[in-house]
Amino acid sequence: MEEQRLSSLLVTNLTNIAYLTGFRGSAGIALFTSCEGVLWVDPRYALQAQEQARSVEVLEERKGLLKAVGERLKRNKDRRVGYEDAHLTCADFSRLQQGVGRRVSFVRATGLVEQLRAVKDEQEVAKIRGAGRITVEVFGKVLEGVRPGVSESDLGAEIEYLMRKKGGEGVAFETIVASGARAALPHARASRKLLRENELVIFDLGAILAGYAADMTRTVYLGEPSRRVRSLYNAVVEAQEKAARSALPGARAGDVDRVARRTLAARGVARLFTHSTGHGVGMDTHEMPRLARGEKARLQTGHVVTIEPGVYLQGWGGIRIEDTVLVGPAGPEVLTPAPKDQWILE
Amino acid sequence: MEEQRLSSLLVTNLTNIAYLTGFRGSAGIALFTSCEGVLWVDPRYALQAQEQARSVEVLEERKGLLKAVGERLKRNKDRRVGYEDAHLTCADFSRLQQGVGRRVSFVRATGLVEQLRAVKDEQEVAKIRGAGRITVEVFGKVLEGVRPGVSESDLGAEIEYLMRKKGGEGVAFETIVASGARAALPHARASRKLLRENELVIFDLGAILAGYAADMTRTVYLGEPSRRVRSLYNAVVEAQEKAARSALPGARAGDVDRVARRTLAARGVARLFTHSTGHGVGMDTHEMPRLARGEKARLQTGHVVTIEPGVYLQGWGGIRIEDTVLVGPAGPEVLTPAPKDQWILE
Repeated sequence: MEEQRLSSLLVTNLTNIAYLTGFRGSAGIALFTSCEGVLWVDPRYALQAQEQARSVEVLEERKGLLKAVGERLKRNKDRRVGYEDAHLTCADFSRLQQGVGRRVSFVRATGLVEQLRAVKDEQEVAKIRGAGRITVEVFGKVLEGVRPGVSESDLGAEIEYLMRKKGGEGVAFETIVASGARAALPHARASRKLLRENELVIFDLGAILAGYAADMTRTVYLGEPSRRVRSLYNAVVEAQEKAARSALPGARAGDVDRVARRTLAARGVARLFTHSTGHGVGMDTHEMPRLARGEKARLQTGHVVTIEPGVYLQGWGGIRIEDTVLVGPAGPEVLTPAPKDQWILE
Repeated sequence: MEEQRLSSLLVTNLTNIAYLTGFRGSAGIALFTSCEGVLWVDPRYALQAQEQARSVEVLEERKGLLKAVGERLKRNKDRRVGYEDAHLTCADFSRLQQGVGRRVSFVRATGLVEQLRAVKDEQEVAKIRGAGRITVEVFGKVLEGVRPGVSESDLGAEIEYLMRKKGGEGVAFETIVASGARAALPHARASRKLLRENELVIFDLGAILAGYAADMTRTVYLGEPSRRVRSLYNAVVEAQEKAARSALPGARAGDVDRVARRTLAARGVARLFTHSTGHGVGMDTHEMPRLARGEKARLQTGHVVTIEPGVYLQGWGGIRIEDTVLVGPAGPEVLTPAPKDQWILE
C-alpha cells in the first residue's frame, strides 16, 4: 500500500477477504487503512462475520454494502483508494463512485493481496498437506473400483463422496474423469461414458481442508498398453518429475515450465503439450504464481504450485500427471504423493 | 436490443452465453447483432465450442478474447454496443475499451438476456421437473438414515453422492444440513456437528439435470416436538402453500411475498421471517424474477420460482419449507413434490 501511496485498500475478492479477516461468507466488502480494517456484511452474515472476523470492525448493512463503503470513504476523506479492478464489476464500480463523489481517486490494485497469499506460512502448508493426504487416500481407494463398464460420473461421485467422508470440506474443483478419446480434452468433466478396455483414463481431483485446496492428476490404462502409450506415459512422468525438482527458491516460474517442455521435446512430443505447466494452489485452486512460458516471477520459499505437464492427441486420448508441490527451504516437497508407477490396471 | 437502439450486444455472463449458444465452458465471450452471433473461446475450449454452439460462428483466440472482441467491434464500425455491466470486471472493461478506441459507445444492458431466460419453454420445464424429481427421490432416501449421532456433513455428502448416482450432473448449490441452533442461520453449510435428539434439522438441496437446477428445503424434527414447534411448523407450511397457490400469471412478485408474510403475521411470527420469499430458478439457481417485498414485476406463464418462507430464532433454531414452482397456464405446479407432513422422526 505504501509503495502505491494508497490511503486505503478496498478488498472485494472474497478469497482475499477470507485471507485477511477470516470471514468466509459469500458476500462482503472490506476496507483497510494502515491502522484499521472494516468489514461490511448483509444481515444474513452478521453473526458469522462477528465470529470469524475478530481482527476487524464488522458492520452489518441492510441497504447495499457499496453505498455504506462509499459513505465511509467520503467521511474518511480518503483520497487515494486502491481497488481490485479484476474483482469488481462495472455495475458495482459505478454504484461506488456515485456514493463518494469526485473527490476520491480510485487506483487499480489487483494482485496486492494475491502476492501475500502466494507465500504460505507453516500453518497454511499444513492445511494443504492435509488436503493432499485426503486426495491421495481417496484416489487409492477409488482406483480399486476402476474397471471396464464403470461410468466416469460414478467414479467422480465416489471421489467427491469419499473426500467429504474423510474430513474434507468439499472438492477444490469439479472432479475430472476423462476416458478414451475424452482424455484429449484437458477440461473434460466426468460424463456418463462407461470405461472400456484398452483406454487411458485421466483423474484430476483435489480436496479442500480448512479452506485450502490440493490438486492432483493421475492417468491410468485399462489393459495392456502399447509401446507407444508406455513411452508417452514415461515421457510425461519424466517431464513432471524433472520440472518438480526444478521448483526451487529463486528459479523463474518460466524456467520450470521450460524444464517440462524441454523434457518432452527430447522425446519428440513437446507439441502435444498444449497448456502451461502449473499454477499456485492455496485458498483458491488457481492462484499466483503461474508457471508458464516466459513468466519472469521468481519462486519463493512457501510458494505452493502444481506441476502438471500432459500430452493430448485429438481423437485418441491424453496423459497428464500432476502434483501439488511446496517450494520448501530444503527443496521441493510433493504434497500429493500418490504412486505413478501403478498405472496399468489389468 | 431494438428498444435500446443497440447495434450489438456483448454477452459476458457465461450462463447467458450457454442459454444463447449452447456452449457450456468456463470461459468465452459472445457478440450478437440482429443477424449473427459470434463466440470467442480460447484453445482449451475450441473443440467443445464447435460441438455445442452450432448456431453461431465460433472463433478460437490465443491472445486474449477481449482484444479480439475489440478488433471486431472496430472493424464492424459498431457504434452502440450493449454490455453486461454486472458481468464484466473493471479490468476487463478497460482492456476492451483500449482495443476499440473512443468511437464505440458502451451502453449498460445487464438483464436483457436474463429476462428471456426467466420464461421457460416446455423443454426447459421438463429439465427442471427432472431435476426436481431427482431432488425429491434423494431426499426420501437420505431421510431413512437421519437419526441422532449422524453428522450434518455425512448427510450432505450422501445427498450429493446420490444426486449424481441418480443421473444429476451435480448439485445446484452446496447442500445445507443445519441442525439445532445452527438451523437459525439461513446460509449454514453442512458442518461436522452431529444431530441430536429433540432438534430441528433443515435440509436445503437441489440437483442439476441437463444444465437446469431445482431447489427444495424441508425441515424435520428428531423426537417429539413441543406444541410451540408444531405450531411454528404448521405456520410455515401454511405460508408456503398459500404463497405457492398465489403464484399465478399476472400476479406481482411482491404480492406473492406478501401472501407469505401475512400468513405468518396472522400467527404472530412474521418478524421471524428474515429473508425474502423466493427467486427464479433455471440455468442458475438464483435468477429472475425475485419474489421480495415491493417487487412490481408480474409473473408470467413459464416462470419457475422458489417459494421458501422460514422462521429463525437465534440460539434456538429455524424452520424453512421450500418448493420450486412452475407458474403454469393451468395454475402453479410444484416441481419438488416431497411430502411435508412426514417431518417428525421418532
